[in-house]
Amino acid sequence: MGSTAEEIVFYTNPMSRGRIVRWMLEELGQPYRTEVLEFGKSMKAPEFLAINPMGKVPTIVHRGVVVTEAAAICAYLADAFPVAGLAPALDDPLRGSYLRWLFFAAGPVEAAISAKAFGALPPPEKAGSLGYGSFEQMTDTLEQAAAGASPWLLGERFSAADVYVGSQVLWGQMFKTLPERDAFSCYGEQLRARPAWQRAAALDDALIPSRA
Amino acid sequence: MGSTAEEIVFYTNPMSRGRIVRWMLEELGQPYRTEVLEFGKSMKAPEFLAINPMGKVPTIVHRGVVVTEAAAICAYLADAFPVAGLAPALDDPLRGSYLRWLFFAAGPVEAAISAKAFGALPPPEKAGSLGYGSFEQMTDTLEQAAAGASPWLLGERFSAADVYVGSQVLWGQMFKTLPERDAFSCYGEQLRARPAWQRAAALDDALIPSRA
Ligand SMILES: N[C@@H](CCC(=O)N[C@@H](CS)C(=O)NCC(=O)O)C(=O)O
Ligand SMILES: N[C@@H](CCC(=O)N[C@@H](CS)C(=O)NCC(=O)O)C(=O)O
Repeated sequence: MGSTAEEIVFYTNPMSRGRIVRWMLEELGQPYRTEVLEFGKSMKAPEFLAINPMGKVPTIVHRGVVVTEAAAICAYLADAFPVAGLAPALDDPLRGSYLRWLFFAAGPVEAAISAKAFGALPPPEKAGSLGYGSFEQMTDTLEQAAAGASPWLLGERFSAADVYVGSQVLWGQMFKTLPERDAFSCYGEQLRARPAWQRAAALDDALIPSRA
Repeated sequence: MGSTAEEIVFYTNPMSRGRIVRWMLEELGQPYRTEVLEFGKSMKAPEFLAINPMGKVPTIVHRGVVVTEAAAICAYLADAFPVAGLAPALDDPLRGSYLRWLFFAAGPVEAAISAKAFGALPPPEKAGSLGYGSFEQMTDTLEQAAAGASPWLLGERFSAADVYVGSQVLWGQMFKTLPERDAFSCYGEQLRARPAWQRAAALDDALIPSRA
């Protein structure tokens, strides 16, 4: 079968942020085709740079449109397949919290964690103009969000925000780039218990050459 | 008239990222109530920290829900008021590009510009694991998006992505935190010609004490 515009093509590498999107795809339950790219090789080849000029994964192509940025891909897939129930409806006020936490995780959380990991956090007196304030402010706010999850960020309803924000929490715990907090452990445990998370992890692990 | 859940309450300061949301509100054409907060004072008071624990603006409250993060607020308002036509419909493939650029600007663009402004860019060999790659990679990708705007990011249709991505381009030009590129100048000129941008700028400028 050739590729059709309806097909979701998923460019990834099993050791990358592509794992976030794999999890989202498994939650979604729609068929997709995986294209594994190699760091520094097929990821920087002209064919792929024409799709994503950043030469990065995850990237998807669906209905002729390229979507990059893990958080954008999660939000896009939830919107494109409302049948999966992974995003509040447009007129649901909870959509405000949904977008708030998605963007908080893609902006402040990601930026603060990277800056800290590279030993490049600006001094505390810059917190007023920095989007994430300080690393502590970001962590405390993320902790409040995780502590409020009962069991998910939007309450009873699991959403794409849990996939993306949850991935940041899980990665932060795994790589110790986030401090330990009870709220992170509890939320993380619930996330890892999801069948789609487990399926996604198994699929990606099986693609890692050394483990194949 | 007391406040109702339907009212959009807009917490801001005229010299802040709140200007992005003011512009969005003016594009939206819905009534809203402005609450000006002072840096380090009402912005860090318990009443406001209960709304946004980051103690930052912009923040809105609508239908009993708090939305923080300038990009999330733009996306939320466009979704909540489809009549304004500021976001592609859920089943429109262009929604992929829309979300891609919103998240690209809130994540990589914001993070790279902040890191550079604070002289805290990690060395080039870290580009593979950094979400924005390098400052140059981010700039080149943003330039491609701006160059493709004809006249807007999604083509003929102006969207909330132009408000947010466009604000990053305009701020980058004004504060020289982005290098000069023809695509940025052209796109910026089109943005500044929008009546809603001009109304928003005038409303905020009038609130700056020294200019009042
Ligand atoms: N902002 C992007 C970051 C994506 C990213 O940095 N991906 C890394 C792997 S985790 C990558 O593809 N690196 C390869 C490279 O830059 O050459 C997102 O959130 O999706
Ligand atoms: N990530 C937030 C950043 C908001 C932000 O940093 N706002 C600044 C003004 S531009 C602020 O309120 N600073 C006051 C403070 O941190 O005390 C967004 O994109 O909206």
